Amino acid sequence: MVRVGKKYRFSASHRLHSPALSAEENRELYGKCNNPYGHGHDYVLEVVVAGAPDAVTGLVVRMGQLDEYVRREVISEFDHKYMNEEIEVFRDLPPTTENVARVIRERLVRGWRAAFPSSASLDSVRIHETRRNIVELGGDMKEAVTG
Amino acid sequence: MVRVGKKYRFSASHRLHSPALSAEENRELYGKCNNPYGHGHDYVLEVVVAGAPDAVTGLVVRMGQLDEYVRREVISEFDHKYMNEEIEVFRDLPPTTENVARVIRERLVRGWRAAFPSSASLDSVRIHETRRNIVELGGDMKEAVTG
Amino acid sequence: MVRVGKKYRFSASHRLHSPALSAEENRELYGKCNNPYGHGHDYVLEVVVAGAPDAVTGLVVRMGQLDEYVRREVISEFDHKYMNEEIEVFRDLPPTTENVARVIRERLVRGWRAAFPSSASLDSVRIHETRRNIVELGGDMKEAVTG
Amino acid sequence: MVRVGKKYRFSASHRLHSPALSAEENRELYGKCNNPYGHGHDYVLEVVVAGAPDAVTGLVVRMGQLDEYVRREVISEFDHKYMNEEIEVFRDLPPTTENVARVIRERLVRGWRAAFPSSASLDSVRIHETRRNIVELGGDMKEAVTG
Amino acid sequence: MVRVGKKYRFSASHRLHSPALSAEENRELYGKCNNPYGHGHDYVLEVVVAGAPDAVTGLVVRMGQLDEYVRREVISEFDHKYMNEEIEVFRDLPPTTENVARVIRERLVRGWRAAFPSSASLDSVRIHETRRNIVELGGDMKEAVTG
Amino acid sequence: MVRVGKKYRFSASHRLHSPALSAEENRELYGKCNNPYGHGHDYVLEVVVAGAPDAVTGLVVRMGQLDEYVRREVISEFDHKYMNEEIEVFRDLPPTTENVARVIRERLVRGWRAAFPSSASLDSVRIHETRRNIVELGGDMKEAVTG
Repeated sequence: MVRVGKKYRFSASHRLHSPALSAEENRELYGKCNNPYGHGHDYVLEVVVAGAPDAVTGLVVRMGQLDEYVRREVISEFDHKYMNEEIEVFRDLPPTTENVARVIRERLVRGWRAAFPSSASLDSVRIHETRRNIVELGGDMKEAVTG
Repeated sequence: MVRVGKKYRFSASHRLHSPALSAEENRELYGKCNNPYGHGHDYVLEVVVAGAPDAVTGLVVRMGQLDEYVRREVISEFDHKYMNEEIEVFRDLPPTTENVARVIRERLVRGWRAAFPSSASLDSVRIHETRRNIVELGGDMKEAVTG
Repeated sequence: MVRVGKKYRFSASHRLHSPALSAEENRELYGKCNNPYGHGHDYVLEVVVAGAPDAVTGLVVRMGQLDEYVRREVISEFDHKYMNEEIEVFRDLPPTTENVARVIRERLVRGWRAAFPSSASLDSVRIHETRRNIVELGGDMKEAVTG
Repeated sequence: MVRVGKKYRFSASHRLHSPALSAEENRELYGKCNNPYGHGHDYVLEVVVAGAPDAVTGLVVRMGQLDEYVRREVISEFDHKYMNEEIEVFRDLPPTTENVARVIRERLVRGWRAAFPSSASLDSVRIHETRRNIVELGGDMKEAVTG
Repeated sequence: MVRVGKKYRFSASHRLHSPALSAEENRELYGKCNNPYGHGHDYVLEVVVAGAPDAVTGLVVRMGQLDEYVRREVISEFDHKYMNEEIEVFRDLPPTTENVARVIRERLVRGWRAAFPSSASLDSVRIHETRRNIVELGGDMKEAVTG
Repeated sequence: MVRVGKKYRFSASHRLHSPALSAEENRELYGKCNNPYGHGHDYVLEVVVAGAPDAVTGLVVRMGQLDEYVRREVISEFDHKYMNEEIEVFRDLPPTTENVARVIRERLVRGWRAAFPSSASLDSVRIHETRRNIVELGGDMKEAVTG
């Protein structure tokens, strides 16, 4: 079993705000991240794939195929977007890094087996919001947050 | 002469859009950076001060003083803001990294001599928008873009 | 289950020296790290918290709360200190990165449940002594080295 | 249980080419990495050792000993080499990062117990081919690819 | 005057060998970099452009245009190549980082004015061979090493 | 003219304290850096050499020779040392990064011409105390702080 990780970058903006809380509770909870106009980050997304290297090719996954899949399912929808307004699920869900990671993981899980019929499986997803904050979802997560 | 540099970080969002151009020209010129909702970055600001180290303290500038000045003049106004809406000058000026650097440099120049009466002078200002893009304004720049 | 990591920095100095060994054995074992005057590093401490994001806030842990806890329990006691002299436990215990990680982990474990009554638990602690050396303590460690 | 990681660097060149495939299949599969003259990378090798810190020394492993072992078994054979021609096993095996990681892990496993008779065990091996690609082999891998 | 820098990456292999020296002199001078099969690096190329930001667009240079120019003139010819065999000029010239930087600078200078008729000029070129080695050619360099 | 930079690392500890000031003035000026036991950093030293690449070798300076010179003149004396006690000049001079840079530059200048009789000259010296603080001494500095 070998784990292969690849990093992707996207720039996006967001506003942390929970519809279940009052304006004052939101301000107190999220501080300046609750600023009404939003603010942005350069996210680094690490996608980790696990499997046995193919005996002929020596690869767990063809990088070009993984790149194309991640760009189509995630990067094209998140890059240079204001998440609260432009990504449907974040109209009701606060786009915290935790939730961004869960939503991205679900999008990757959804079409995974069709795109990668080989033994390679999605192991984990890591998001670096800044150089100091990291969120990771291990390979065992099952439940979905989007419909 | 010794140059002393210090890095600061701030997260902000912006939309590249020039009021002097048509909607189509803006889209063609700035591409996805012209997205109407804006997007964001984690900016790194490097402030470089030049001078002779003080004979008694061995310092060109007291770091605590520089930190306080940069935070008051720049970081407190840019961090977690949507620049196009929340920083006056960018209502008419596209917040490209070039212009962000010029505006930040002017704010630092404005009160510099009052805050640092010693021999230390502002040498240059560097902004890293992402790990791949850098903009630098040397110590010799004079003209102002804000009123 | 989501893991959330946050990095903190502190600068400290230490001397590797075991009271159970002779001067010569210490020199041979630790080399230049046994230098009598000590030397220093810029440590990076990564604290990893695991839990389910709160349904309302979308957060595993409130960052401001974690920051305050880590600063009070660890950073305020380690930053700009000579560990062998100024941190009690290292009078008898050599402040190797392994031991520094264990001591820091214990301090974080001690008051954890009181500070974070929610489901969030301390997953692991990582210390980067330099860019090339890392020490990690997984979430399952139980035993204590301090009284 | 504490995990201690140490990073090493080596520069090497390789050509991705599988003897079990036709010239055209190789070109299609590996793209520009199949270029007949090869190309190169600055690999970062992370070796992770797991164990309990020694009660007297506070160390899981003596760093000098680990450095000497990794340099003798791996770095001296890979650094500044064209892997396809100069490392026997890659005459038949495509030197993908996955295979490079497996071959390095086997070399480290081979003489491990003789070199480190203490409780320290080899936990995992990580290879960064570039800043964006990482391959990891966990501590549980058993099978060998070399004779 | 604002300087704008952009980083590009390419992976290439080379062998340091001077045709004007004997085999023994080459071995002594370049050490393991003279290894007959060559070895490789992940080069980072920084291209620095200087100029006044355009009053309407706020840009010194359109990034998309610079990217296209650098990719066509440099990256497409260097990436995944064995420089000694596949880049004509390095048949006689040792591909040291110094010479790689000079050759790249000349290629950028050649068509610069035609590609960028505006006031933006090529300021300097920096090459990072590894994280520890940097070579820089300032904006004032005139002489050519290729015909 | 080509500039070639090389990075070196050393770990050292220091205490900021000026003999010309009272205990209280020292505390107020340097804050926690005045802590009586000292603290430490992982310094990165960048040495920049300028010259024309040799027509035969393609090198501005032989790296092995530069490494040996910098290690002998600087690293061997600073690495793993408590600067205030173990480096003579810092008995009277506060070891601020500014002064550390000046002292290192003088040591490099002293024997430069004897060690590098070719056209290569010392251009500048940069010290990164942490990832956020940089001090640079340009090529034109003349005056000495040590006898």
